[in-house]
Amino acid sequence: MKKIEVCQSPELIHLYDLKGKIVVVVDILRATSTMTVALAQGIKGIIPVSTVEECKVYQEKGYLTAAERNGSKVEGFDLGNSPFGFLENDFSGNVLVMTTTNGTKAISLSSEAEEIVIGAFLNLTAVANYLKEKNKDVLIFCAGWKGHTNIEDTLFAGALIDMLSDHFMVDYDMSMIARHLYASAKGDLLGFVSDSSYCMRMETKGLKKDIAYCLQIDKFTNVPKLIEGKIKNLAAQPKNTSYKHI
Amino acid sequence: MKKIEVCQSPELIHLYDLKGKIVVVVDILRATSTMTVALAQGIKGIIPVSTVEECKVYQEKGYLTAAERNGSKVEGFDLGNSPFGFLENDFSGNVLVMTTTNGTKAISLSSEAEEIVIGAFLNLTAVANYLKEKNKDVLIFCAGWKGHTNIEDTLFAGALIDMLSDHFMVDYDMSMIARHLYASAKGDLLGFVSDSSYCMRMETKGLKKDIAYCLQIDKFTNVPKLIEGKIKNLAAQPKNTSYKHI
Repeated sequence: MKKIEVCQSPELIHLYDLKGKIVVVVDILRATSTMTVALAQGIKGIIPVSTVEECKVYQEKGYLTAAERNGSKVEGFDLGNSPFGFLENDFSGNVLVMTTTNGTKAISLSSEAEEIVIGAFLNLTAVANYLKEKNKDVLIFCAGWKGHTNIEDTLFAGALIDMLSDHFMVDYDMSMIARHLYASAKGDLLGFVSDSSYCMRMETKGLKKDIAYCLQIDKFTNVPKLIEGKIKNLAAQPKNTSYKHI
Repeated sequence: MKKIEVCQSPELIHLYDLKGKIVVVVDILRATSTMTVALAQGIKGIIPVSTVEECKVYQEKGYLTAAERNGSKVEGFDLGNSPFGFLENDFSGNVLVMTTTNGTKAISLSSEAEEIVIGAFLNLTAVANYLKEKNKDVLIFCAGWKGHTNIEDTLFAGALIDMLSDHFMVDYDMSMIARHLYASAKGDLLGFVSDSSYCMRMETKGLKKDIAYCLQIDKFTNVPKLIEGKIKNLAAQPKNTSYKHI
């Protein structure tokens, strides 16, 4: 039986051997939720970059850019880190270059993995089905908040483990903690998450609508995957039995 | 209002500013539980050391020594890391030199703190009362397991936060996660912890009795504190209104 485990912070990723594993990068508020929405809405590919400076270089070459630090859009870029940027505008056909406080860092730290996919509540079942089908060891890599564990990424880890516990061996205590947390919260994710420190920070920035949006389960069925430096959709075929690159 | 927060792994301690804080070091299975028992049973002081080699040097000088690695007693030393070592033998009056896989490392990483105290379920209320009285910022520092979060230390953090939430501001999501976990587990700590990866490892080493012992709440009222390199008891005075060094 393959195993599934959780890394709750980029500061702990060195404890895990990523080779041969599928890493599911998670930054529910909001990088991986927004990536899922952007690709579902027709963005052709996302180039994740670690720094604002790299993002600027791409902008000067004419790319569509999104940059966020500390929960706010970085001035001078086309977009920040809100799913509504892609719901309220039509950017279909564009390649997006994106940098965020925690999410894009987690992606760049996953380079040794066999595959890197993007997880969110918005595509939870699609990701779970993909992992079942591939049947490889899985590491759920929570982006967290500046090295700290956060509730929303931990809840996602718990939800995904819950869906996969019959198919994978659940390893390490953090996986069990995540699963217990999700069991406590699943009746009211939004109410549960609203007490978290980050949500309180985000609400003061007027991002309550984003939080509510990103906690919805299965609005989309796309599975974003990093392919040669770009995050692209894998398309589910009928009955979710296999996947191909779009 | 002073604040209380949780660091769940020695690998994350650099994220916290320890200055001016009371750090409560926790390694439920078993270092801080055993330290609490040892001091309650008359050990005069405990010198925590990071390496087996340092422990050996003290042994050659005639000290009573305890050394554990990976859940087992290190051959050649007087004791391992079991509370029963101090319950079934009388070592009162001795100074103990101790090294363990995770617990003593967490103590040595806390050196910048204003105070370092030792927490366990066995002295939970005594530690909570001490923290209330001192009224300083508190960091609960979970020793974890080789860098990973573990369930039993997280549960202790949750229990302590639960007792102190009217007196302290609870900071960061991990504190909330710990508190939720404790709420799920408190009716049956042993049953809850028995599924954890470490417990399963320990049970194969015949340490089930130790696990059950270390999950008992308030068997003792001593508060061990690091004073000039030695962990010693603080004695509670009547009504728990103030503390003095024994």
